[in-house]
Parts: sequence; structure tokens; C-alpha cells
Amino acid sequence: MEHNLDHSIALLERTPATLNALLRDLPEAWTTCNEGGKTWSAYDIVGHLIHGEKTDWVPRARIILESGESRAFDPFDRLAQFRESAGKPLGQLLDEFAALRAENLAQLRGLGLRPEDFARRGRHPALGAVTLSELLAAWVGHDLTHVHQISRVLAHQYLEAVGPWSVYLGVLQCAGHSA
Amino acid sequence: MEHNLDHSIALLERTPATLNALLRDLPEAWTTCNEGGKTWSAYDIVGHLIHGEKTDWVPRARIILESGESRAFDPFDRLAQFRESAGKPLGQLLDEFAALRAENLAQLRGLGLRPEDFARRGRHPALGAVTLSELLAAWVGHDLTHVHQISRVLAHQYLEAVGPWSVYLGVLQCAGHSA
Repeated sequence: MEHNLDHSIALLERTPATLNALLRDLPEAWTTCNEGGKTWSAYDIVGHLIHGEKTDWVPRARIILESGESRAFDPFDRLAQFRESAGKPLGQLLDEFAALRAENLAQLRGLGLRPEDFARRGRHPALGAVTLSELLAAWVGHDLTHVHQISRVLAHQYLEAVGPWSVYLGVLQCAGHSA
Repeated sequence: MEHNLDHSIALLERTPATLNALLRDLPEAWTTCNEGGKTWSAYDIVGHLIHGEKTDWVPRARIILESGESRAFDPFDRLAQFRESAGKPLGQLLDEFAALRAENLAQLRGLGLRPEDFARRGRHPALGAVTLSELLAAWVGHDLTHVHQISRVLAHQYLEAVGPWSVYLGVLQCAGHSA
């Protein structure tokens, strides 16, 4: 399916409530555990989504509209949440994510994008030339990547507990795929 | 982490609200599309979860408690939703899933399980001997497998639309892992 602004907004506006329903007041045994080593917990992932709202999607859309390919996007800090979330309870992070997402979607609607704007190009510091529609579709794909990851991180905590059922539970076979 | 009944219930009781937040009133372009061929859409998956509530988890727990290994579980029908969901709008399926899950968790609490019950054994028709704690942990893992799958099926619809970002979006690299 091609990128469609209304379809993207419909998904983007549901992510905060989805994570809120899944994670708020869930025991910390679920939310603070990761998949080992330097992998991320659900708590870390919500912090990462917050940092994306602040620095990634709408700011990059504005760079495309204002500067086109002449100015590369600022690189994204994939570890910012370990500094910015420190000391905050998960409920506060969920509130913060919901508020930032609502504000960003209001800004996106306020841009008054016309059909021809979606083909406008910007410059990603690693990926090179990208279009505004690719950026907006990637925002959706990024949300879904992290819902996918959170379900996997939570399931990992029961990897042993499920016993022989692990062969039937696809999420337990997933090793993650992010570059 | 070992199986813990309170932790399992905390997750199991959040799944209906999680799927409700993600899927209710989402455009059908998202919810009725699959990953090609005979793969499942989000709509199909909610129907599958409903069938599990009716025939799988709590009924199997009762078989363990009543008959132990002397009676194998009834095989699970993985295609029941194509018959049972027919003609129902997704909102109705989400309501049905939420009601069945609430009833099943009330029944689970009503069993008054004691610590020693979790080691009691039953017989899975394909996996062989399993314990009650493995069954309950697998119920949680099954929910998470399908949250994982739904995020992947939704993301698949934007596989082309994200352009070069696909390399960064782990959910788009996931081919599914269910046996």
C-alpha cells in the first residue's frame, strides 16, 4: 500500500494508548528487564520513542520543507534515553510520550501538506536522498518496530517458563532484526 | 524469570485493551490486509485469540486439574476464526475478546491454585507432557506472539512506502517464526 497521510496519522495517534494499555502499572519484572547485555527494556524503548518525538520525525519533516536536500538531517542519538529518562517512573514517560505525540500530530496537520509535497526530498545523514512520504511512512514503521520489539522483550522473560511450547511461539524465535 | 501467576495475570489482563487501543476504528486498509498468500490479517488474529479463549487455555488448565496426563488436551483449531468471525465487524470481535478474557481470568482466579498445583502435569496432543505453569506461561507468550505478529502485519503494508528506511526498521526484516 502506498503512503497515505490519513492512514499514517491513524496509526501514529494510536501508539501512545497502545503502549499505555500494555505497560502502565505492569510489574517492573516485565518492564525493566531486557534480552541480555546492552539490549533494551520496555522502559528504555519508551524513552527512545520520546527522544524521537523531540528530535526526529517532525523536525526532519520541517528540514525537508525548509531546506530540501541542501541540509542533512541531524543524526539521531540512539542512546539519549539512558540520560533523559533517568529517575523517571514509567508512567511519567508514557504521559510524556502521549503529550509529545499529540503535539507533533497537531504540528503535522498544521503544515497543510499538499499532494505534491510528499515527493519533496531531504537528505538523511546515512541513507542519502529520501522523500517526505518515506519519512512519514518510516515514522509509522518505527512505532511498529518498537511495538514488535516490546512484545519480544516481554516474551523473552518467559523463554524458559513456557517449556516445550517455545517451538509454537514465534515471538520466542525472533532474535530481532534492527540494523 | 520463573512463571509467576500474578505476573501472568497482569499481562493477560492488558492484552484486550492493548489490541483495542491499536486496532479499534483503524482504517480497514490496515486491519484487513495480510502478508500475502494464506497469512493472517490483524482481523484474523483477533478471531484466533477469541477461539483460544473459548477452547484453549482455561479449558486445558481444567483438564490438567481434573484428569492430569490421563486425558490429552483437545487439539486446537488454528483456522476456526475464518468460520467463526465471518461477517462480524472488528469492533465486535474486540469486545468479544475482552469479555471472554475477563471471564477466563475470573475463572483462573477462582481455581484457587496453590503453589504445588503449578507442577501438575497434563498431556499436549503434540508436545507431550507439560505442566500447568508451562501452560499459563504459554498463554502469556501466545498473546505476545500475536501482538508481535500484528505489529509485523501492519508494518508490512508500508514495506515499499518507507523506501531506504527499511534497513533500520527491524519489524520489516522479520519473516515470522511460528511453527
